Amino acid sequence: MLNQRRGDGSLRHLITLEGLPRAELDALLDHAQRYVCALGARPPMNRALAGVTLGNLFTEPSTRTRVSFELAARRLGAEVINLEVQLSSRAKGETMLDTIHTLESLHFDGFVIRDSEPGVVAHVAAHVAPHVSVFSAGEAHLSHPTQGLLDALTVRQHKGVRFDSLSIAIVGDIKHSRVARSAYDVFTGLGVGELRLIAPPALMPANGEFPDGRRFTTPEQGLRGADVVMMLRIQKERMAQAEIPDGEQYFARYGLTAPRLRLAKPDAIVMHPQPMNRGIEIDSEVADGPQSVIRDQVRNGVAVRMAVLESVLRPRPVRA
Amino acid sequence: MLNQRRGDGSLRHLITLEGLPRAELDALLDHAQRYVCALGARPPMNRALAGVTLGNLFTEPSTRTRVSFELAARRLGAEVINLEVQLSSRAKGETMLDTIHTLESLHFDGFVIRDSEPGVVAHVAAHVAPHVSVFSAGEAHLSHPTQGLLDALTVRQHKGVRFDSLSIAIVGDIKHSRVARSAYDVFTGLGVGELRLIAPPALMPANGEFPDGRRFTTPEQGLRGADVVMMLRIQKERMAQAEIPDGEQYFARYGLTAPRLRLAKPDAIVMHPQPMNRGIEIDSEVADGPQSVIRDQVRNGVAVRMAVLESVLRPRPVRA
Amino acid sequence: MLNQRRGDGSLRHLITLEGLPRAELDALLDHAQRYVCALGARPPMNRALAGVTLGNLFTEPSTRTRVSFELAARRLGAEVINLEVQLSSRAKGETMLDTIHTLESLHFDGFVIRDSEPGVVAHVAAHVAPHVSVFSAGEAHLSHPTQGLLDALTVRQHKGVRFDSLSIAIVGDIKHSRVARSAYDVFTGLGVGELRLIAPPALMPANGEFPDGRRFTTPEQGLRGADVVMMLRIQKERMAQAEIPDGEQYFARYGLTAPRLRLAKPDAIVMHPQPMNRGIEIDSEVADGPQSVIRDQVRNGVAVRMAVLESVLRPRPVRA
Repeated sequence: MLNQRRGDGSLRHLITLEGLPRAELDALLDHAQRYVCALGARPPMNRALAGVTLGNLFTEPSTRTRVSFELAARRLGAEVINLEVQLSSRAKGETMLDTIHTLESLHFDGFVIRDSEPGVVAHVAAHVAPHVSVFSAGEAHLSHPTQGLLDALTVRQHKGVRFDSLSIAIVGDIKHSRVARSAYDVFTGLGVGELRLIAPPALMPANGEFPDGRRFTTPEQGLRGADVVMMLRIQKERMAQAEIPDGEQYFARYGLTAPRLRLAKPDAIVMHPQPMNRGIEIDSEVADGPQSVIRDQVRNGVAVRMAVLESVLRPRPVRA
Repeated sequence: MLNQRRGDGSLRHLITLEGLPRAELDALLDHAQRYVCALGARPPMNRALAGVTLGNLFTEPSTRTRVSFELAARRLGAEVINLEVQLSSRAKGETMLDTIHTLESLHFDGFVIRDSEPGVVAHVAAHVAPHVSVFSAGEAHLSHPTQGLLDALTVRQHKGVRFDSLSIAIVGDIKHSRVARSAYDVFTGLGVGELRLIAPPALMPANGEFPDGRRFTTPEQGLRGADVVMMLRIQKERMAQAEIPDGEQYFARYGLTAPRLRLAKPDAIVMHPQPMNRGIEIDSEVADGPQSVIRDQVRNGVAVRMAVLESVLRPRPVRA
Repeated sequence: MLNQRRGDGSLRHLITLEGLPRAELDALLDHAQRYVCALGARPPMNRALAGVTLGNLFTEPSTRTRVSFELAARRLGAEVINLEVQLSSRAKGETMLDTIHTLESLHFDGFVIRDSEPGVVAHVAAHVAPHVSVFSAGEAHLSHPTQGLLDALTVRQHKGVRFDSLSIAIVGDIKHSRVARSAYDVFTGLGVGELRLIAPPALMPANGEFPDGRRFTTPEQGLRGADVVMMLRIQKERMAQAEIPDGEQYFARYGLTAPRLRLAKPDAIVMHPQPMNRGIEIDSEVADGPQSVIRDQVRNGVAVRMAVLESVLRPRPVRA
């Protein structure tokens, strides 16, 4: 596995949240929280990344994440250039490494990469010049670290910093979800009290994955007493044809409705990474209801990405 | 209908020119004219919109208008991000409102929207947060307010501010034209002396529309003595198959040729919103001739959009 | 042929390197070399082009060249807007000249144009307003002037300024290569000692072209004693079906392998404009080997384009 740190221990890339110590996660979230508070302010927040040029490499469609990274970078004074480049082995006539070295020779300081092929992000990170950083904006079904951080920040804003007292339920298509995997990494990293996985058997991840998660096959069992209910999007684009559930049936058995939500704690919050399939994984009454913090999640995305970009590209000395 | 004003009476959005009082139209045109005069100057005009981030949402192709808004925003120091988002009911997997709220949570200050579906622009404007403004860059066949303003500015530059002494003829596919509808709004708002509509019966708007326009079915009748001849583009993309006129026949009966133009006043100006179908609605001899002010229209587009962006996003106190 | 100079003799456009005097080529390369040396430095290099707005018009796909121009412009403080415009006769519903005049009316200071149709770049340059400059970013199979300059800069960095003592071999699909044509222009302009063209008969240019080149049909003959070996990409997209060589056969007879490279001087450098077809025109052992300067070429691209943009848009007085 790729070492995402520099020799001095600071983060050089952000490819995964797996293994990040609690203190480092807390520091990133504190950093992001300061930007959340300041984000209403105009003009540009600061010029911490003046002179920095980032390249956006999105080979899967994305508006939310791409724009959020772009806004974050610009609010710190960086330039962002959208690159329409095929990175993966699907690219013809040019190997991926040639492309990487070409991009590197163009004097980019970092790349923000989303790719549907496992390993592409780390492969790029392993081969760029020492001064170049790589930021994952979503890798296959495996990892989406800035989403994990913004989810954690949202929980913290509503439930406080004591994750050990929290019970968090992740519901839905966990098997195909990079959001779930990064949520697992960050919540266990922050010492969550209990992490529940609620999914139909066909959408439950393999047994070796999510080792500290408690598995439930019905929301009726899994939602009881939860502090946080994190719904996942049905990822039809990552499913084999036979796996795609019937929307109505799925909603009947797993969709988050108001009655089901009442199984959780009365002050439980409802999250969803968006875009939502309303009427399939979540009922509009819940999505737009008072317990929903779904819009906060998006809002936190810019602040989290500012914190990540600044921490990685302008690291402060690491104390032992 | 959407109220496009703030509580204090200032413009919060620009969705339509309908109902804008003459004083307000004049003020916008005066504002734009100051930018026309200064536009040769480098570097960036001013920093009135420093710290502002605009999102471009164009779900119909457009170069002229999109680039013109982008240049206008940047010349005022704003950031512009092109969003590739499906806003309308055609979008799958995400309802339009979810998209709007997502974009809003990303801390945009305004959206510039072009859409082929009636009502989408106003729908967005009705649902964004109070601090967010929406600018129409063309809505279906209904409205194109900044085009209307740049057309009015062009007329004013050549014919002066006394619209009550002018006879303006709009010629062609009026039925499908948002340009014609916004021209009607702005010219009647400015107190135009006479507004003529010249179109074959199949391309004439319904009877309730354009109430103050005089209708003519041939240019021979309608062009006599006109001060301004505004040609429209044949909008094949908005016509049913049966409506599309034969190009040659159309040109023979409605195309603006030099002999036809001689029916208007000797100093009449010729306008066209572009792109032109040369040899269909207009002859090149006229399009490139001395009475043509078509290039002025494009040039005025940047200045008008600067004035609109600044007036809406940095409103001055409104006096009663 | 288009005169790409202003009345005072300074370069107004850069469409071709043909006929540029040696002193002018040297000055451009000196200028670029200063940027190569400074390019590590942050923040933005200087603000020489503050207030300038460039439009990118790429009607053929390009990442390397488009991004390289964009980075170059931004490092000089200019704005760059990507225009999705069809310039050529393929465009429907709007003639090319209308498009050009529209773009001009939007107050651009220059256009960077790539087009697969011969003559389009010069046609635009011939019709824009006097204050607007046009930069070719690749024209059909004819010309790619900034590539020629970056190739010359790369040679100079490794072989010094005395081109009259050098033997440069261009190998491969010369017939379809704009890279080869601009290389020919710049190397002969710099007084190269010997220029060799090595290609199979089917990929050799017509007899009237490359008049000062020595033609060879095998690398075994042509590579002996060369100082510079410039490999070309097989341009399948520009070939008729019957012309496309079999990859394996081509590699066997023309691919640059380590044994073939040993025919050249021991310190010969290997160049390739990228993207490479590894295993067709070049072996990975050579592409990644110690004599390869392929990455230097990309790196030089930003500096060369900074020099070109600045020289054309901010010309200094020309002395007689």
